[in-house]
Amino acid sequence: MQKLKKLEERIGYRFKDFSLLETAMTHSSYAHERNIQSYERLEFLGDAVLNFTVAVEIFRSHPDKDEHFLTDLKSAYVNRNYLHRLGKKLGLGEILRHSGPKNIRLDQAVEALIGAIYIDGGYLYAKNFIKKFILSKEIKPLKDYKGLIKTVSMKIFNKDVVYKVEKEFGPPHKKMFQITAKIPGEKISATAIGKTKREAEMKTSKILLRKLRYPTPNPQT
Amino acid sequence: MQKLKKLEERIGYRFKDFSLLETAMTHSSYAHERNIQSYERLEFLGDAVLNFTVAVEIFRSHPDKDEHFLTDLKSAYVNRNYLHRLGKKLGLGEILRHSGPKNIRLDQAVEALIGAIYIDGGYLYAKNFIKKFILSKEIKPLKDYKGLIKTVSMKIFNKDVVYKVEKEFGPPHKKMFQITAKIPGEKISATAIGKTKREAEMKTSKILLRKLRYPTPNPQT
Repeated sequence: MQKLKKLEERIGYRFKDFSLLETAMTHSSYAHERNIQSYERLEFLGDAVLNFTVAVEIFRSHPDKDEHFLTDLKSAYVNRNYLHRLGKKLGLGEILRHSGPKNIRLDQAVEALIGAIYIDGGYLYAKNFIKKFILSKEIKPLKDYKGLIKTVSMKIFNKDVVYKVEKEFGPPHKKMFQITAKIPGEKISATAIGKTKREAEMKTSKILLRKLRYPTPNPQT
Repeated sequence: MQKLKKLEERIGYRFKDFSLLETAMTHSSYAHERNIQSYERLEFLGDAVLNFTVAVEIFRSHPDKDEHFLTDLKSAYVNRNYLHRLGKKLGLGEILRHSGPKNIRLDQAVEALIGAIYIDGGYLYAKNFIKKFILSKEIKPLKDYKGLIKTVSMKIFNKDVVYKVEKEFGPPHKKMFQITAKIPGEKISATAIGKTKREAEMKTSKILLRKLRYPTPNPQT
């Protein structure tokens, strides 16, 4: 209770219906044993509110960028690791009621918190939270990895990375691509799967960067 | 021009900025050659508006359902095939300006149209469009497939389907699962990949249903 009050101060929002905040801070492992509500429904809602808000805000703030850039930038802002770190910063790790697993993913709790604010106060308050705690930080879109590994590979090996589609899965309208990235003649490669070739390439690029011990920028560390 | 006017009538919304509607009905293949704007940015925005609206509406209309049900139901409403059929019904196939590919996916144009309405008239008009043309139809959540194939398999073979995780890909926080579904002792199986085991199981169930020539319910025909 005391902890939840402090959380309200930290986020600058006071709940009319305090039980919404309690539910948002209740993991299913805790709720299940006690037969009370957990945060999952609020997380479902908060995820939608978050994606919408980020999409609208970056659409407006980047009138000259194409949809690829916008998609990548949105991915970076709704990224699990990024949200998990925000959850940590807000102290949700100490507030969340759970039993069982020690390493709870706090990104879900952040989304549940957004969902709770949306229900309790309406869209504007949820938007304010997202602007203040999520969009306020300038981050780079995910796709930078492909450009970055190219630069790094040219610098170290004087060779560019080669991407190859290894497999395609799934029905025509919902294909998945498995891609392998190699640096020709070097013993370094990476394989990843993505909903688009670009997504899979991005993932392999990130793995290569790690293998070369090159620090990957926020929020994908 | 005449066609676009008729589209306005059909959807019951008149654009203040008519060029937004024109852009929403311009495929990249057409735009590219002429160096004009295509619908992709609007599609990015419309996709976010659509997902948000569907999530909020079904969250409210199904207070007793858990997040799995909500996720599956949302997937069914934002499903590409479902939106493609709506695009067809609205006559977008004849309106969309494109050159090159014959089988244009109209789901993207529907999303672009939603994005255009959102920009032109604000959220309420976009929401009205979504309620009128997308949420008005009662559809079943995707997960029914698993229950359906079970019923069908019991009826035909007197055996239940067995699902097996064949592979796991990706980093711990973004795992992908490859699952194979079999009916023991029968020469029928299906393999699919999903972000969750449930999603992969659902996909294999759908494939099995097709193989058994069992009609899969809307909107996943």
